[in-house]
Order: sequence, then C-alpha cells, then structure tokens
Amino acid sequence: MKIAVDAMGGDYAPLEIVKGAVEAARAYNIGIVLVGDERRIGEELALYNSGNLDISIMHASEVIEMSEPPAVALRRKKDASIVVGTRLVKEHEADAIVSAGSTGAAMGAALLGLGRIKGIDRPAIASIIPTLHSRALLLDVGANAESKPANILQFGIMGYIYANKIMNCQNPKVALLNIGEEETKGNELYLEAYRLLKNSTINFIGNIEGREITSGLADVVVCDGFVGNVVLKFGEGLARDLMTMIKEELRK
Amino acid sequence: MKIAVDAMGGDYAPLEIVKGAVEAARAYNIGIVLVGDERRIGEELALYNSGNLDISIMHASEVIEMSEPPAVALRRKKDASIVVGTRLVKEHEADAIVSAGSTGAAMGAALLGLGRIKGIDRPAIASIIPTLHSRALLLDVGANAESKPANILQFGIMGYIYANKIMNCQNPKVALLNIGEEETKGNELYLEAYRLLKNSTINFIGNIEGREITSGLADVVVCDGFVGNVVLKFGEGLARDLMTMIKEELRK
Repeated sequence: MKIAVDAMGGDYAPLEIVKGAVEAARAYNIGIVLVGDERRIGEELALYNSGNLDISIMHASEVIEMSEPPAVALRRKKDASIVVGTRLVKEHEADAIVSAGSTGAAMGAALLGLGRIKGIDRPAIASIIPTLHSRALLLDVGANAESKPANILQFGIMGYIYANKIMNCQNPKVALLNIGEEETKGNELYLEAYRLLKNSTINFIGNIEGREITSGLADVVVCDGFVGNVVLKFGEGLARDLMTMIKEELRK
Repeated sequence: MKIAVDAMGGDYAPLEIVKGAVEAARAYNIGIVLVGDERRIGEELALYNSGNLDISIMHASEVIEMSEPPAVALRRKKDASIVVGTRLVKEHEADAIVSAGSTGAAMGAALLGLGRIKGIDRPAIASIIPTLHSRALLLDVGANAESKPANILQFGIMGYIYANKIMNCQNPKVALLNIGEEETKGNELYLEAYRLLKNSTINFIGNIEGREITSGLADVVVCDGFVGNVVLKFGEGLARDLMTMIKEELRK
C-alpha cells in the first residue's frame, strides 16, 4: 500500500508531518509519498534514519493556507500540495491521500480531481467519535450546508461501507440522528431519510437521539451536514472547556 | 412571588418535589402552591417543619406520565397536575409554574392554557448550559421539529428578554449557532435568520460555531429546535459517558 501525504498541511508542517510519516512507514510497513516543497521536506527527512523505508518525495510548489477560500485557492494554485497529492491517487500512483490541512481544500481537490462514486450525488465528511467502549463514524459533519433525504441515505451507505472495510466492523449498525427514537419523529427531511434508510439494504437500526452518539449503540451515525458539524464542534469545544475547568479546579 | 409547582412530575414525585419546595420556600422566602394529589402531598409535607412557610396545596386528581403522548394526555386528563397548575398562572393565582415532569405535557399545557405572547408564532424550549465562567441560554432545544427564519428571530428575542430579566444579564449577547462564523455561512434557513437577527434591535453578535457554545462568547445561543435538541442531548450523553469512563479508569 502506498499513501500520499500532504506534507505542507497542518500545524508545524512539514516538520510534524514528516516526523509522523517516518513513524507510520516504520510501524505499518507501508509506502509513503510526501508531497510538497522538495527542499524543505528533504531537510526534515534527513533528520531521520529513513534509508530503509519506502518514503519518496513528490515536489509541489504551492500550498493552500487554512485562511484561503478553498474554491478560489484550488482555481489559482494548480500546483498546490493537496492538488498534486490527489492527482497521485487519480493516476493510481497512490492508494489514498492524507492531509491535515484545510478540510475544504482537501474535499474540493478530491471532488475536482477524483470525482464522485457512481450513485453518490454529494460528498460527505466523516469523523470518528470515541464511544463508551469503542468508536463510531459520524457523517456528514459539514461537507454540505443543505442536504436532501437522498443525500442522507447515500451518507448512510458510504458510512456503512467505510465502517466495514476500513474500521473492520462486521455488519455495522447504522442509525439516523434524530430528535426522538420513534419512526414518526423529526422534520420532513429526517422523516423521509428514515423511510429511505429503512428500505435500503444496509443494517439500519432506526433513529437515535443525541445522547446515544457516544454510547456505542450505533457504529455509524448519519445526519445532515449542518447538524453533524454543530455536534462535532460542540463536542470539541466541550472537551476543551472541560479540560480548562478541571485544570482550574485542580489548581485550587 | 408565588410559584405553582407540579408536585406529581419528575423522579420520586411527590417525595423529592415536596422536599425541594420546602427548601426553596425557606431559602428564597417565596410562596409555593404544590399541585397534585392532596393526600400524598399532605403526607410528605407533614414530614417537615413547614408551618411558618407560605406553602399551600391545590388538589389535582390526575397525572400525565412521561410515557404518554402529550397531546392525547392533555385532551383526556383535564384534571392533571400540570394542567391545574398552569391554570393557576392563567388566573393570576401564581406567577409561574415549575414542573420536572413531561416536557411535552408542560409545553402543551402552557400553549393551550396560557397561549402565546403577541408576535410570537411558536413556543420555544430554552435550556441553561454551563459555560467556562458563567452560563448561557440555548434555545430552541426541541419545541419545534421544523422552524422558519422568523421563528428563530423570535426565539432570539425571547432569549434576550429571558436572559436579561430572569438571569440578570445586562444587554445579553445573542449569537446564532451556525457552521461558520461568516455572515455567508449556513443553509437557507440560517442565512435568512441571520439577516432577520442582524436587523433586529437586540444585541446580536453574529454567528458562532458549536465549539463556542460552552466558551461563554454568547449569553444566548439561538438555533432551530432540531439542532438545539441534538446538541442538548449530545451534551447530556457525553457527560454521562465521560463520567462512566472516568469511573472505570479510576477503578483500574
């Protein structure tokens, strides 16, 4: 397996990215192509004893910054690391691309460079959420501000396949995030999404409320991108603020 | 001030409710009318030295259980404690009603018994969320499965007034919960709600993302009932599951 890694995306790139790539190549015995500024990546790579690892560099002269509007940046920067890395996947020179940079740019580069799977109208962003004794896949967490029932069905199918193939989950339980457990709960969007999911061939277990996201009841939790984004970021903020509160209490 | 209390609603009612009412009457020097089964409330009240407190009982022969569909229950049980208590407010014999019972029944009883404030099309349910150094009011957390932009504006106005009058917050900062901070972020519902809030006379500070709900950036966080309900319940579930994890770790 060969993974393209956007060496220029994320905090302290390319330093931390190269460091992680070396560790990953060693731990998982995989090939890695570091994409970005050849000279800077080379300097970082030289710090490690990586001669026996399958790590190569693919030069890309530009970088899309976190602050740039993705659509504009993708049009202007044809040689951005995320674009070049995605092209490696398109041309079967890599099996997947990893980036810790701008989510919007990564999604845009994939949409433009790789296109959509047949039958999938809109991409989704999925996030892995820790649960009581395992983890769950939550999607869409923000690729789409507006979703249709068919999109939610497709997110459910993609989530099912991802959980099965990548997370090694046998026949993953897919639940619809809703404001009540009964089939009759929710707004028009969710009532129709429920109907579509129920009639699909995936292992749909029905509605779950917000309080079951972390309980482990479902392996895949599907929702529209607006709700998923708010939930994900609320969880992030709550974790950050709880840690601050706990530290303050401990100092007392 | 006189508060009607639904003595039959909530866990271990009327035992815990009567106990709390006695404590509150003593601590805040307020009048309380306990509404519900006269005999059972009387038995509980007799356990306390409450002769010097302004606590009275208003008999109600029925109780709406948590499991009952609120609309049906409200039609059938005309003498339910929540209905009788709400009537006390309607008839100015109490200033407010408190219930730890079925939220749907309490909201339905208020909607049927007290009606809506002029200019407010739909009720909202508000919840107080702890923040880093204070607390914030989040609404709507589930009175409405489907909302229009005008509803969200009205929730914002109600939240502003509640935070000001009840939570003693000077010129509360009202924020719209959204998937980005910029004015151009969100779906159609939120783009229009933003415009309405921006043109209102309340202290609207713009969009906040989910990660700022608990940071204290806003005193009032306004959203539609679907999103608010998912957020509230996710927070409840996360708190419950984190406590379980912490306890398990401590036992190790």
